[in-house]
Amino acid sequence: MAAYETVIPVRFGHVDYAGIMYYPRFFDNFHAVFEDMFGARLGVPYMSLLKERRIGFPMVKIETEFRKPFRFGEPMRLRISCTRVGKSSIDFLYRAHNGAAAEPSAEARATVVTVNLDTLKPVEIPPDILAVLRALHD
Amino acid sequence: MAAYETVIPVRFGHVDYAGIMYYPRFFDNFHAVFEDMFGARLGVPYMSLLKERRIGFPMVKIETEFRKPFRFGEPMRLRISCTRVGKSSIDFLYRAHNGAAAEPSAEARATVVTVNLDTLKPVEIPPDILAVLRALHD
Amino acid sequence: MAAYETVIPVRFGHVDYAGIMYYPRFFDNFHAVFEDMFGARLGVPYMSLLKERRIGFPMVKIETEFRKPFRFGEPMRLRISCTRVGKSSIDFLYRAHNGAAAEPSAEARATVVTVNLDTLKPVEIPPDILAVLRALHD
Amino acid sequence: MAAYETVIPVRFGHVDYAGIMYYPRFFDNFHAVFEDMFGARLGVPYMSLLKERRIGFPMVKIETEFRKPFRFGEPMRLRISCTRVGKSSIDFLYRAHNGAAAEPSAEARATVVTVNLDTLKPVEIPPDILAVLRALHD
Repeated sequence: MAAYETVIPVRFGHVDYAGIMYYPRFFDNFHAVFEDMFGARLGVPYMSLLKERRIGFPMVKIETEFRKPFRFGEPMRLRISCTRVGKSSIDFLYRAHNGAAAEPSAEARATVVTVNLDTLKPVEIPPDILAVLRALHD
Repeated sequence: MAAYETVIPVRFGHVDYAGIMYYPRFFDNFHAVFEDMFGARLGVPYMSLLKERRIGFPMVKIETEFRKPFRFGEPMRLRISCTRVGKSSIDFLYRAHNGAAAEPSAEARATVVTVNLDTLKPVEIPPDILAVLRALHD
Repeated sequence: MAAYETVIPVRFGHVDYAGIMYYPRFFDNFHAVFEDMFGARLGVPYMSLLKERRIGFPMVKIETEFRKPFRFGEPMRLRISCTRVGKSSIDFLYRAHNGAAAEPSAEARATVVTVNLDTLKPVEIPPDILAVLRALHD
Repeated sequence: MAAYETVIPVRFGHVDYAGIMYYPRFFDNFHAVFEDMFGARLGVPYMSLLKERRIGFPMVKIETEFRKPFRFGEPMRLRISCTRVGKSSIDFLYRAHNGAAAEPSAEARATVVTVNLDTLKPVEIPPDILAVLRALHD
C-alpha cells in the first residue's frame, strides 16, 4: 500500500498571536490523521477499536521538528506512515507539508503502545491491525 | 455568600487571526470557573462529584453576548452566579470583565441539568450542592 | 441555493470525562462550517476575505440549545443558513444533526457583525458576500 | 534562582475517550508555564515582549516522553528550566509531575529560537531575557 495522507486546513482559530499555527495544534492534527487512517485502512471506524474492542494507543514518546511555519489559510498536507512494529509498540512518522511542497515543513516520530483501555496495560497488536501497519509505508 | 470570581489570562494561543480571543475559548473559560467554584465552595474537588458520586451537569442552553473583545495579555475576570435552581435544572450567569472594568465585556446565561453520569438521566440536586448554589449570588 | 452542510466527526479528543462532546467544541465546529461555506460559495478561500480584504466577522451574540449529546465516533452533520442580513450584521442558524437524523440535536442562532479587521469597526456587507448570504437558506 | 513551577489542574474537558489527559493538551500547558515564567521572572507580562518589543519564540524542536497518564482532577505540577542558551536559540526542559510525586510523569526537551515577530528571523537574545534564562535552573 502506501503512507496515508489527508489535507487539513489551517483555520482561523488555529493560529496564535504570531499569526502562525499554534504549535500544540500540530498534535491535534496528528491525532486526526491517525484516526482517519485506521478508518480508511481497517474498513471500520477508529472508534470501534476503542468502544467495541477496548484497544487504545497512548503516546509514549514523540519527537517533533518544526522547519517552516504554517499560516492561516494554508492547507496542511499530512502523511502518516509506520516505521516499526514491535509486539505491542508502534513507531509512526508524521510529515506535514505546506500544500504541494515536496519537503515536509514539520516532521514527528512517535511511539505509541497498544493497550487494553480498561487496564491501560500493553496487549499484543491484533493481526488485522498489524496488517494495516505493515502496509503503511511509502 | 457571593458570586465566585477567578482571573484567567488571555494567552498567546487563545487569540485568533483577528488578534482577539477566539470566541469558542470563552466557553472553555466558563467551564474552568464552574469547576473551580465547586471546588472552592463545596470543599471537595469538582472531580469527586463526577468520579465518586456520578453526578454531571450537561449544558442544555447557553445564550452569550460579546460586547467588547479580549486581547492577548489582558486578564479576564470571570464571575459565576446562580440565578435559578429547579428540581434538577440550574441557571448560571457568567460575566467576563476586562480586568477591573465594572461592566462585563461578555455575558452568558446558561442552563444545565443535573444528571446521573451513567444514564445521563436527570436527578434531583443533592442538598449540599443546593446549599452552594443558593449562596452563589451577588 | 440552499443551506451549506458539512460532516465533522466527533473525534477521540473531543469528548469530555462524561464521554460526550465537550460543549465548547460545538463552537469550534460552527466556525469550521462558517469558514468552509465561504470558501465553497464565494469561490475564494475564507482566508482571502481576512488577509486581502481585511474583513472579519466577530461574534456579537449566540444562543445555543443542546438537545441530544454527541458521542465519540458519531458524525456531526452541520448545516449553516442565513436567517437575516442587515447593513453590517448577519444572523446565522446552525443545526447539528447526529448523522442522518432529521431533527437537529443542537441548534444555535448567531449574530455576527461585519468589521474592518484593523479597526474592528462595522463596515457595510460587500455585494459579493451579500449575494452569498441571500442564497444561504433552505 | 531556580526552575519555575506552577500547578495546572487536569480539567473535565482535557481528558480524552480513554479518560486520561489528551496528549496535545500537554503542549498547551507547556506554553502556559512558559508564559507565566516570563511574567514572574522578568517582572513584565509575557505579552509585552511580543506586543511592544516584537520578540517571539517559535518552537524548533520538541522531544516528549509520557511515562504515566494524568487523570481528570489530578493536579499537574509543571516545572520549566533552561538547559542551554545560544546566541538566539534556547533549550528548555519541561517536567510534569502528578501532584507531589518526585519523579516526573512526562518530560519534554524543547528548542525555541528568538525571532523578530514581523520577519520571523532570528535575533540575539536581549540581555534582560538572557539573565532570566541563566537563572532558570534547579
